Amino acid sequence: MISIVLLGAGNVASHLYKAFSKAKSITVTQWYNRSFDAIKSYQNETEVIDSLDKLKEADIYILAVSDDSISKLSKMLPFSDKFVVHTSGSVNIHDLDKRNKRGVFYPLQTFSKTAEIDFSNVPICIEAEEREHRSILKSAAEAIGSPVYKINTEQRQILHLSAVFVNNFTNQLYRIAHEISDAKNINFDILKPLILETAKKVEDMSPYLAQTGPAKRNDKKTLKRHLKQLENDQHKAIYELLTASIKQTHGVSTSSTTRKS
Amino acid sequence: MISIVLLGAGNVASHLYKAFSKAKSITVTQWYNRSFDAIKSYQNETEVIDSLDKLKEADIYILAVSDDSISKLSKMLPFSDKFVVHTSGSVNIHDLDKRNKRGVFYPLQTFSKTAEIDFSNVPICIEAEEREHRSILKSAAEAIGSPVYKINTEQRQILHLSAVFVNNFTNQLYRIAHEISDAKNINFDILKPLILETAKKVEDMSPYLAQTGPAKRNDKKTLKRHLKQLENDQHKAIYELLTASIKQTHGVSTSSTTRKS
Repeated sequence: MISIVLLGAGNVASHLYKAFSKAKSITVTQWYNRSFDAIKSYQNETEVIDSLDKLKEADIYILAVSDDSISKLSKMLPFSDKFVVHTSGSVNIHDLDKRNKRGVFYPLQTFSKTAEIDFSNVPICIEAEEREHRSILKSAAEAIGSPVYKINTEQRQILHLSAVFVNNFTNQLYRIAHEISDAKNINFDILKPLILETAKKVEDMSPYLAQTGPAKRNDKKTLKRHLKQLENDQHKAIYELLTASIKQTHGVSTSSTTRKS
Repeated sequence: MISIVLLGAGNVASHLYKAFSKAKSITVTQWYNRSFDAIKSYQNETEVIDSLDKLKEADIYILAVSDDSISKLSKMLPFSDKFVVHTSGSVNIHDLDKRNKRGVFYPLQTFSKTAEIDFSNVPICIEAEEREHRSILKSAAEAIGSPVYKINTEQRQILHLSAVFVNNFTNQLYRIAHEISDAKNINFDILKPLILETAKKVEDMSPYLAQTGPAKRNDKKTLKRHLKQLENDQHKAIYELLTASIKQTHGVSTSSTTRKS
């Protein structure tokens, strides 16, 4: 049995609490939050506290708080030589106070407050100073059904950056498509199956091999017409830059395509 | 019963043939292709021909050929006053020769040669000069289980442009994430659940509401570190442009964030 004390009450903390409390091999010993209100509705399920002085013994202390609060909170912990981890994609493991043994338990997924999360779709990237602690983190991740990856701080920060590309930036491309189709009274639903299929395609094919379309084909007529159809200068710039990026990836000449005989 | 003559043997034609031949209310009367080799393996299932002179009577003639060949092929058809459609996202309905009644049957999806296609995930955008013909196209699309949308040429071209954003450009963002994670020996599999969840999220939430991340939060520290981590200038430019686009969409000040009291 792994005992966990959870600190924080944001999206990640709340989803982790629900997953841990369902897992057979895990006990959530306590749930701490600075403001009691956010967690008091759970007081019949676990011990909820708003004072760090009340913290009890546990195998892992999980600081699921905002990036900026991690270092400060770790310094406020009233004990040493225990195992303390954060859940951030970008904060260095050494930002945790060194009085305790340190680690990271980073769930790489997009969390919304409302939707139920299936942790089998949430890869957990783990890091720890000591092998024994890494093994505890691995067991905790497996207990909630998550795939586990051993990742160091540099790799984790690159993953966090990659996540911005495949999540935030991709979502912004959806937004632009929504905007330009809305302007012509086109139902955005028509694009949803394509959005889903595009994501599914790279499950078992590399994005390199999955690429199609006018940029890769260097279909100048279509590229020119598309640019003409875009009314917003920023959309035009995005079209041009991503087209150039596809051409570069696929070795399409960006200048002339005239072939020598 | 709707009788169809299919012309062409590319990805779209092949997938349409398979779907039509399974549909109870559709007969594929003939399958034409300029080169006989591409379709001869189907000669036990339907009449396959390589000469336009052999074309028989049918309710719809579907020109599933490349954009550049549509107009030319429509001019070569040895009949008039029949119902002829193309399957392109970008070609004008009036590019079809006007001796025949014209229409469009545009399946909006990414097709690969190998994978089996479930047409319930392929919206069909239909257009026709006459109401009666539009109704035949609607029945044909419904017979293969596709959702059907009545779309005019301008809307279809904007959909095609939108598809470049949500398919080609999105896939290129996946590619960049693959590149930067590969460079640090990170398994791209870690990002796949996030890719899928990002696509699923906009099934029932607008991309505007689904947005999260450092650009929307105007988290300057993270934005700065990410830019520093990117080694490729084109990747940096894409990061900056899409960050600016998110900021603009969400009304985040792009200059100073100092608030006046």
